[in-house]
Amino acid sequence: MTKTKKDRQFRPVPVPSVVLGGLFGARQDAVCAATAETLLDRCVEAGMVRAIDTTQPSPGIVLPLQPWGGSTQMFWDSDLGKSIETVAFSLYRRPNPELEARVDKIIDLYEKMQDADGYLNAWFQRVQPGRRWTNLRDFHELYCAGHLMEGAVAYYQATGKRKLLDIMCRYADYMITVFGHGPGKIAGYCGHEEVELALVKLARVTGEKKYLDLAKYFIDERGTEPHYFTEEAIRDGRDPADFIQKSYEYNQAHQPVREQKKVVGHAVRAMYLYSGMADIATEYNDDTLTSALDTLWDDLVTKQMYITGGIGPAASNEGFTDYYDLPNESAYAETCASVGLVFWANRMLGRGPNRRFADIMEIALYNGSLSGLSLDGKTFFYENPLESAGKHHRWIWHRCPCCPPNIGRLVASIGSYMYAVADDEIAVHLYGESSVKAEVAGTKIELSQATRYPWHGAVRLTLKVEKPTRFAISLRIPGWAKGAKLSIDGGAVDLASIMVDGYARIEHAWTGREVIDLELPLIPRALWADPRVRQDTGRFALMRGPLVYCTEGVDNGEGLNALTVTGDPARAVESEVAALGGAVALDVEATRDVSTGFEGSLYRETPPATQPAKVRFVPYHLWDNRAPGEMLVWMRGGLKKSGV
Amino acid sequence: MTKTKKDRQFRPVPVPSVVLGGLFGARQDAVCAATAETLLDRCVEAGMVRAIDTTQPSPGIVLPLQPWGGSTQMFWDSDLGKSIETVAFSLYRRPNPELEARVDKIIDLYEKMQDADGYLNAWFQRVQPGRRWTNLRDFHELYCAGHLMEGAVAYYQATGKRKLLDIMCRYADYMITVFGHGPGKIAGYCGHEEVELALVKLARVTGEKKYLDLAKYFIDERGTEPHYFTEEAIRDGRDPADFIQKSYEYNQAHQPVREQKKVVGHAVRAMYLYSGMADIATEYNDDTLTSALDTLWDDLVTKQMYITGGIGPAASNEGFTDYYDLPNESAYAETCASVGLVFWANRMLGRGPNRRFADIMEIALYNGSLSGLSLDGKTFFYENPLESAGKHHRWIWHRCPCCPPNIGRLVASIGSYMYAVADDEIAVHLYGESSVKAEVAGTKIELSQATRYPWHGAVRLTLKVEKPTRFAISLRIPGWAKGAKLSIDGGAVDLASIMVDGYARIEHAWTGREVIDLELPLIPRALWADPRVRQDTGRFALMRGPLVYCTEGVDNGEGLNALTVTGDPARAVESEVAALGGAVALDVEATRDVSTGFEGSLYRETPPATQPAKVRFVPYHLWDNRAPGEMLVWMRGGLKKSGV
Repeated sequence: MTKTKKDRQFRPVPVPSVVLGGLFGARQDAVCAATAETLLDRCVEAGMVRAIDTTQPSPGIVLPLQPWGGSTQMFWDSDLGKSIETVAFSLYRRPNPELEARVDKIIDLYEKMQDADGYLNAWFQRVQPGRRWTNLRDFHELYCAGHLMEGAVAYYQATGKRKLLDIMCRYADYMITVFGHGPGKIAGYCGHEEVELALVKLARVTGEKKYLDLAKYFIDERGTEPHYFTEEAIRDGRDPADFIQKSYEYNQAHQPVREQKKVVGHAVRAMYLYSGMADIATEYNDDTLTSALDTLWDDLVTKQMYITGGIGPAASNEGFTDYYDLPNESAYAETCASVGLVFWANRMLGRGPNRRFADIMEIALYNGSLSGLSLDGKTFFYENPLESAGKHHRWIWHRCPCCPPNIGRLVASIGSYMYAVADDEIAVHLYGESSVKAEVAGTKIELSQATRYPWHGAVRLTLKVEKPTRFAISLRIPGWAKGAKLSIDGGAVDLASIMVDGYARIEHAWTGREVIDLELPLIPRALWADPRVRQDTGRFALMRGPLVYCTEGVDNGEGLNALTVTGDPARAVESEVAALGGAVALDVEATRDVSTGFEGSLYRETPPATQPAKVRFVPYHLWDNRAPGEMLVWMRGGLKKSGV
Repeated sequence: MTKTKKDRQFRPVPVPSVVLGGLFGARQDAVCAATAETLLDRCVEAGMVRAIDTTQPSPGIVLPLQPWGGSTQMFWDSDLGKSIETVAFSLYRRPNPELEARVDKIIDLYEKMQDADGYLNAWFQRVQPGRRWTNLRDFHELYCAGHLMEGAVAYYQATGKRKLLDIMCRYADYMITVFGHGPGKIAGYCGHEEVELALVKLARVTGEKKYLDLAKYFIDERGTEPHYFTEEAIRDGRDPADFIQKSYEYNQAHQPVREQKKVVGHAVRAMYLYSGMADIATEYNDDTLTSALDTLWDDLVTKQMYITGGIGPAASNEGFTDYYDLPNESAYAETCASVGLVFWANRMLGRGPNRRFADIMEIALYNGSLSGLSLDGKTFFYENPLESAGKHHRWIWHRCPCCPPNIGRLVASIGSYMYAVADDEIAVHLYGESSVKAEVAGTKIELSQATRYPWHGAVRLTLKVEKPTRFAISLRIPGWAKGAKLSIDGGAVDLASIMVDGYARIEHAWTGREVIDLELPLIPRALWADPRVRQDTGRFALMRGPLVYCTEGVDNGEGLNALTVTGDPARAVESEVAALGGAVALDVEATRDVSTGFEGSLYRETPPATQPAKVRFVPYHLWDNRAPGEMLVWMRGGLKKSGV
């Protein structure tokens, strides 16, 4: 039986199948040269490795107990897991026996720590033994397992070494005996979603459906009544109402997942849940999950998402607040949350290429996520505001170190987000200098992109095929790429005739001699927010291709809010900035409000005088890479003059 | 010897000397009818009265220890002191035997609690006995004494009852033996200023210069090296570096006060210190203090003050941050801080009338302060933001209950801020329906204002004199009152010829038959902020007379930031709003950005469409008195169209 369109199952290509150049190649080099080692160093400094060394005394609770204190320690396994994953991905690109040996030692410690039944968790084995499975709501127990599973899969793919993979399979097998309905079983799920998507990765690499079934169980069970978190608290002698976040919305456990219509609570938790749901929707062709995810997707991107793909405006819950509440200077917009949105968007493509998801994936990747890592791979942002008065700077580390390894592992594995394969089709979701090896329609192929994207819009795709074969290549035509042109072997193709859900779908009997040229016009464009976003009224943001631009003090002097753009952003003068890796800067005419005459008073009855100015925009994700200072995304002006 | 101009000493008239009608008369009625009793009720509910009842067990530290917990209790004496003061002032206007009896009982409890040596403090006598004078930096010990002194002075003036005054004199006499230099003395001062200005009040009502000298000692000693707070901490076995506020700037104790150039730290502390300094400058004709205060004044009003007279933008230190950092939605702008600014401004007038101070006093009074009390006198604001998305509302009470009695006592005593008297001059600092009795140039006089100010600009002053006498009446001509007109007995007076520091100084042999007419044009006016205030660029605020205006959701629908004022604010249509006590509302033409076309995306490449709208402005201090909803001070637009 021919699969219907929606039953197609696109799965990302494995990370090692893609080799990158260009912007992401350079970023991966920085991860190999700096980030990977930094992560391990900082885990060691924090005491994470000593904590799992059973020859050392229990770490106890590290004092002084800071706001994050004990709770940070509770998810140390996850930091190690994500760090191992980042190192693993970096080893694909650049072998590093020293780093590999350090990871092997950590894996050996986990092997020794693992209980006979398969259980593995630094906090509950070393700090609070006897409290296992007593507080799934707050203690990140399965979340930690999930990140170790992801690390195990990546490390196995990178090195062929199975030890950590086997450890985590033993743990997952034990979980299967623990969780579910029936006598002696725990009908629960984790307060911080993650294990669901990790179990899917484990299933895909091992071929074991039982891990998919466990993931599906966690998703199906979430938010059902009687409520597990309430019953668990009572059983544990805690008052269920004594919950700092007040509502299970924080954990997206306030309703069964298929009934959820609004994106709520802790942003990273939400993204990880929806990612797991999307994976299960793909693997089980589960339309009820897909339908819920469609609703949640629209809720997020039409009411709650920064233009950067940043999400979760509030620090208080690290998450969502009200519709259209998107403060710029105080934006939390955690790096992990945008990384999570990339994860989710990518998994929404599991049921077929669709620009609706892929365009947002690209925006969240290039802006809200990539801003979290400095060009040299050595420093990080945790929060990603869209405005700074000059005091927000990249950190060496963070007391809650979730973001550095999260952006590290995303950058190092970005190849698998660029390409996905179904039976007889390969989809190109993202552009960038790269080549991918895959098997499509039973044939080994290699597809290469020669391009300077995202700085230039020309992409030349060339193909090698093992033997001439008929299959489809689907190329995303981004929504912003008005006037995009496609040609094959120099012959123009009528794009409109082959567009499917925003992708140019080229079905062809490929010989391997074809040259496909795609031209994506990168005209700078001004964007306006829905006026219900009170913080952005009267302002515009500048984008070019997938990149959101910003102004910085280092280019424009301080007082960015005193600038009003008077020139036409579409006619901005482009130039390359060597200090930003050849990034394209945009210069536009502007005026600057001046403080002359305000010496005696902060307020007066005439508006400030203005003087002519030029304003330089640079890609948002590159800010704070040169000198500390102000930054601003939403600028005043940008309106075309009437009659022009 | 004739006093030079700067050696004139203006002192506020006693509160009972002024009778008010108009806006403040109505507000005082609300204090008499509601606020005064509410304050006592809430003090009782919080346990403050039981805490000073020595027949009851020690209150101990009330658990659960909230963020404010013990520290709130530490300043319970001050809440009682301010509440007694408010009740006392209310008794001038409206005798209330029941309230008076309740205060008498509280005073009896203080009398019984007072130690034989005169010491009096609920926390250190009842909760931590033996810790007296061990942590002046953090424990509000002298601050509490100061507020009880202010309460004692007010209650004595209101009722003639001396008991609390005598108690506080005994305490002050004991302080004189404790503080100062020399063997066995404590060379310290309080971490929260207040006792300085209170001692001046005590000195003025008792005629005892020794209390002035103690106040001067505290001021002179502050911030000198070796640093008292550091030495105290070491002596007490604490690490001086273990100070949550990190710098003595928080307490304005980082430098000797005469060397301070920048307004820093906790806003209320700063205002109380400067108030005490200004009093001492007046009483001692101390030019070195006046000079320091001049510098600090300019620093505050030209770089750190909201247009409402709100000060202290940050919650983290309840105080000052960087120059020009005046966020609107997250503004802390504590009611107490604006009340403190009124205190300070008023005391800067001690050395002579000067519009520079009085204009700001009026603005801080009518906007940043008065917003803190609802029209009915029953609910309060602690923070006074200049923008709200609809979730900021008046409280019944606050866990840190400093603001309700502070705005209560200010409103109830406002008469003494309106008029001040020197030997041969009476200054009218504020306008409003009222009459004052005073002695000027040896003659008893009564000066009355008939006016509907601040809603209407006509003020008629009439005078009674015991006998015809030559003296000066100085009338403030506010800086905003362009085109103000003055006439005496119908004859126009050339204002320019008699202006001194922004006051019309009318020196005359008064017979008591004169009628003075002052016309202050109340033309609505748009104001712009120095463009260094990044939060206000591209926006204007509307004022009329001393009142800052705002828009509210209840008048304009939600989405206030979607409005752009297109009409000329100076030509706004005026109308009276019965639900706001006859306040003048202002209606102006505007446009509204509409969300049409943003259904599918938060961001798009064309600006929002607009539709015509009218926008209604109401006085800022009256917001959230009708219905909950949005509020906005700084609006887009307001620019006169070119060619108009």
